[in-house]
Amino acid sequence: MANVIFRFENGDPVMVSTMTGENLLETARKSNVVIDAPCSGNGSCGKCRVKLLSGKLDSRQTRHISDAEYAEGWRLACCSQVAGDVEILVPDIASAYKSRMKVADLSSPEEIQIFDESKEKIEEAGLPMENNIHIIKVKMAPPSLEDTMPDIERLIRALQEATGIQYIRVPYSVLRRLPDVLRSSNFEVQCVVSQGKSHVFVYEVSGKDENLIVGGLAVDIGTTTVSAVVVDMTNGKILAKASAGNGQIRFGADVINRIIESTKPGGQKKLQDAIVSETLNPMIQQMCRTAGISPRHIFRLAVAGNSTMNHLLMGINADPLRMEPYIPAFFKTNSFYASDINLNVHPDAHIIMAPNIGSYVGGDITAGTLVSMLWNQSQFSLFIDLGTNGELVFGNSDFMMSCACSAGPAFEGGDISCGMRATDGAIEACTIDKETMEPSFRIIGEEGQKPVGLCGSGIIDVIAELFRCGIISPKGKFIREGKRIKHDAYGMGSYVLAFESEAAAAKDVEITEVDIDNFIRAKGAIFSAIRTMLNTLDFDISMIEQVFVAGGIGSGINMKNAVGIGMFPDIPLECYHYIGNSSLCGAYAMLLSTKAERKVYELAQNMTYLELSTEPGYMDEFVACCFLPHTDNSLFPSVVQE
Amino acid sequence: MANVIFRFENGDPVMVSTMTGENLLETARKSNVVIDAPCSGNGSCGKCRVKLLSGKLDSRQTRHISDAEYAEGWRLACCSQVAGDVEILVPDIASAYKSRMKVADLSSPEEIQIFDESKEKIEEAGLPMENNIHIIKVKMAPPSLEDTMPDIERLIRALQEATGIQYIRVPYSVLRRLPDVLRSSNFEVQCVVSQGKSHVFVYEVSGKDENLIVGGLAVDIGTTTVSAVVVDMTNGKILAKASAGNGQIRFGADVINRIIESTKPGGQKKLQDAIVSETLNPMIQQMCRTAGISPRHIFRLAVAGNSTMNHLLMGINADPLRMEPYIPAFFKTNSFYASDINLNVHPDAHIIMAPNIGSYVGGDITAGTLVSMLWNQSQFSLFIDLGTNGELVFGNSDFMMSCACSAGPAFEGGDISCGMRATDGAIEACTIDKETMEPSFRIIGEEGQKPVGLCGSGIIDVIAELFRCGIISPKGKFIREGKRIKHDAYGMGSYVLAFESEAAAAKDVEITEVDIDNFIRAKGAIFSAIRTMLNTLDFDISMIEQVFVAGGIGSGINMKNAVGIGMFPDIPLECYHYIGNSSLCGAYAMLLSTKAERKVYELAQNMTYLELSTEPGYMDEFVACCFLPHTDNSLFPSVVQE
Repeated sequence: MANVIFRFENGDPVMVSTMTGENLLETARKSNVVIDAPCSGNGSCGKCRVKLLSGKLDSRQTRHISDAEYAEGWRLACCSQVAGDVEILVPDIASAYKSRMKVADLSSPEEIQIFDESKEKIEEAGLPMENNIHIIKVKMAPPSLEDTMPDIERLIRALQEATGIQYIRVPYSVLRRLPDVLRSSNFEVQCVVSQGKSHVFVYEVSGKDENLIVGGLAVDIGTTTVSAVVVDMTNGKILAKASAGNGQIRFGADVINRIIESTKPGGQKKLQDAIVSETLNPMIQQMCRTAGISPRHIFRLAVAGNSTMNHLLMGINADPLRMEPYIPAFFKTNSFYASDINLNVHPDAHIIMAPNIGSYVGGDITAGTLVSMLWNQSQFSLFIDLGTNGELVFGNSDFMMSCACSAGPAFEGGDISCGMRATDGAIEACTIDKETMEPSFRIIGEEGQKPVGLCGSGIIDVIAELFRCGIISPKGKFIREGKRIKHDAYGMGSYVLAFESEAAAAKDVEITEVDIDNFIRAKGAIFSAIRTMLNTLDFDISMIEQVFVAGGIGSGINMKNAVGIGMFPDIPLECYHYIGNSSLCGAYAMLLSTKAERKVYELAQNMTYLELSTEPGYMDEFVACCFLPHTDNSLFPSVVQE
Repeated sequence: MANVIFRFENGDPVMVSTMTGENLLETARKSNVVIDAPCSGNGSCGKCRVKLLSGKLDSRQTRHISDAEYAEGWRLACCSQVAGDVEILVPDIASAYKSRMKVADLSSPEEIQIFDESKEKIEEAGLPMENNIHIIKVKMAPPSLEDTMPDIERLIRALQEATGIQYIRVPYSVLRRLPDVLRSSNFEVQCVVSQGKSHVFVYEVSGKDENLIVGGLAVDIGTTTVSAVVVDMTNGKILAKASAGNGQIRFGADVINRIIESTKPGGQKKLQDAIVSETLNPMIQQMCRTAGISPRHIFRLAVAGNSTMNHLLMGINADPLRMEPYIPAFFKTNSFYASDINLNVHPDAHIIMAPNIGSYVGGDITAGTLVSMLWNQSQFSLFIDLGTNGELVFGNSDFMMSCACSAGPAFEGGDISCGMRATDGAIEACTIDKETMEPSFRIIGEEGQKPVGLCGSGIIDVIAELFRCGIISPKGKFIREGKRIKHDAYGMGSYVLAFESEAAAAKDVEITEVDIDNFIRAKGAIFSAIRTMLNTLDFDISMIEQVFVAGGIGSGINMKNAVGIGMFPDIPLECYHYIGNSSLCGAYAMLLSTKAERKVYELAQNMTYLELSTEPGYMDEFVACCFLPHTDNSLFPSVVQE
């Protein structure tokens, strides 16, 4: 046995005992110590850096750690085994997952405006924010020796009278507290009910004077980020909002690594706990405090997530999703209740889940498609949700086709040496002077924040600018020399955005040929998916009339640069629209609007799913896309290298 | 603080720390040490005897402990405070609650025969043992790249085809395991479903070759004893049976004390845990082991218990039951599921509860009334369930009236100095020779078992015989002298059934004038209830054509003696029928027969409830009944003192 002490820049250290020889990343995971590990510990991403403070660790150096860094104590957790008592520093970057995310969480006025506009459009399309949950006030005659009707019957009769409906269901959760509530309120109460045509379900009975808010919860469960709002079900008002990193992140950055992790013994439960107990329940608690309501007064949930997130949330085996023939356990189901997964809301709260339509096109896309409004117009439109997976829908009011491609974590800073998520210190936009090759950039954070790394939109800009300025070739190799261009011992080039002295990091903030190569493959996955899907429909890129871009990367993205590197189709920039976190907005609409909920089911039903991994031609198309902007430059007439 | 060690004749000691000054019975309760306390610790019953082995206890002696006993260390736990570190012996009598109960648990061939006959009568009355739970086998085409329907949809379609029903509900408990089950069984499965006219609920999906039994559970929750059977829902076969003491007994012998206990802080949960975790779950586990099935394969429950037991089982405030106007939370509800109360069976198992019809006439009586068959005949019949509460139904196929009286724990040996429940060492039958006044008795237990005390049927016999032999007066006072007649310092007489030397107890087994007085009040409660109920209907005792006696005391009861002491009406003995544990048998019928279930609801609906405590004349009637056999001897023409 060995004692491992994890230390942090902020916060109390964590001490654990483990077996000698155990992998350090595993030890951290078991102890709920969050170490960034986008590649889930296979040594490829180099993100799980920790610093050996004292004691013994058996580590491989790998290409991610320089000799100088190794001498300073830097190690990759995934490539280290505990060899005795040891003391480890876990860098603060890990806390990025827990920190506020900039994008798509309604924290900026722009995001809120986008959200409000989306809501209005949905309503204008004939889907008003109306649902069947509301409050009914009833007054009963108190019992007497002449009138000894039991409590439940007394309530049922009162509700039958108030609604004209015979079938009233009073669940155990209400009946259990009924004698106390009726007596303390002198038989004058308000009931939260969902009222159908022929039946009424009673969620809650409170005294008539209690401040009773009918709460609802809409959640977007992203692979990386979880965003949520608590709303008043009776008027749609947002009472509180929150976003947080998905606690599953320490089990891998992408869905494949998470699924693999979930198939290990106890894995399903670990992944479920990570999202339910570590992520959603704390968010709910925080939002309810803000909103001033009891979590018990959240009576309905709407969840939008990709198919894997949906399966892991519910603790359902997701392994068949990743293996041919890629079969989810469910597309659509009305079988889920909060108590099934111990969500800290009303136990009978129904979980509305935006439907999946395939292994890799899930509820985030069906909910997002509602918000994109492409189903409500004749123009041929492309909806792109840029998350850890890239997901696409193409069509109009007559037809829709959808597919997904694995862009990998590059858009969120994974697989990139100085990559990071869009949080404080991230370079989110960049221009480069063609002559001097000097960069100018915008950094997330307060005035004076020094750069730490590059987030997705920053990477797009840097690569686009490097290419525009002729600093890199269409293959992404450095072809100019200068103060900011470095070459290492193996001849690998890199461009320094900020030297160590200018940065908040302990090393140069740079982008390497390996990074560029990784990113080119990511953007290639997106564009080849678009091309392949259009091909199967006998469509041409020029026929795209509108593009709706959504998702985590979205708000900072420079569309011109995204076109410039061959990620998005080369059509007029005014065709591009950023629509924010369409997944969350779609979940909100499903929560509040019975008609919107039905519409999403209908959209899912009518959407064709294209499984790219088995589509002939996709791989060829992908290879052709792995250039700046493309092997076939005629596809990008507006892109010129200056 | 003080350390308390509870020692037992068998089993490991229990050590706890408590505050100095804490009541010893309370300390025991908190530590889950079972000490018999029928009066729930108010010092009146004298049953909570413990022996001080060492250390300090502040105790009142009370009339229940003689000087000699006090000197030996005997104390009443309820009248003792911990005064320092102390070591206590808890007598083994307490284990009686956990031991096999003789009566009404189908352990004897007679009981089984009575049960089978009752079942046949119910079936002959047009209520066949048919329900809507059964197994459906389906075979699906395994998914392929051409057929990527998700698992749940695949199953639903297969079941739609098999049943012709569109609405198939697959709950979370099934969906959660569906991907694994389908794949491990190559998509050929058997499903346990409940099938209605227009919908199917899926409880379980198993591989086609698995040994799958459709289990059901019928339970009689008595105030003192809990009996249960596990059955095969498809054929009614009893797979296992069990009975045990109700774990709530340490919180009081009768419903009133239990309710009071439940209103203390945390009380509701304590009482619920005592019946669910301590009593039912261990019984279920034991029965399932015997039956060779998984508790998860119990798909439906039927419970018959009195109104208080039903409320406490479900953790619902029972206090309004005991306070005017005596209002239960529910008579009938279909809102209860096993997962609501963490019963260790299938989480979606529906709990069918035999309906209550008043505060003190509960599901045990409505279920028992079904079994009595009095609803199916023209003869005027009386149904008596003799438990801790006495409950009565009178009527025939045209009308039914019901009432309850608090007989107290006397029939089960409570409130009687040498009383005990019907377990090993209990005198269950007795005759006395008029000349010599020597007793002959039958003792429960193996050949050679010495007497420990008197159970209910034994007490009836002893009092009837003492009266018949002119040893006691109609007021229950001793009026003859002899070797077996003692008088204490205060002049209180008693009759010794077995001197210490002949007994298995550490003192004489006797019956005192106080015991007789207690018992007379108990039997008086029953008879006065019968008289009062008949009076309100303008009926006379002579019009009773049949009497059905059920319940815990039942099987050993001597009807002639019960008439002889004025407990039961003086009608021809051939009118009396013992019908066993009618509550359990009724629950069994409700579990297996949808028609029987409906019939019980119908019976409950049509039964008038008479609240005796507010009935004028009941108290006068009661007082008149507190004689042997009655103040009005003309009511008992066949009873003569020899």
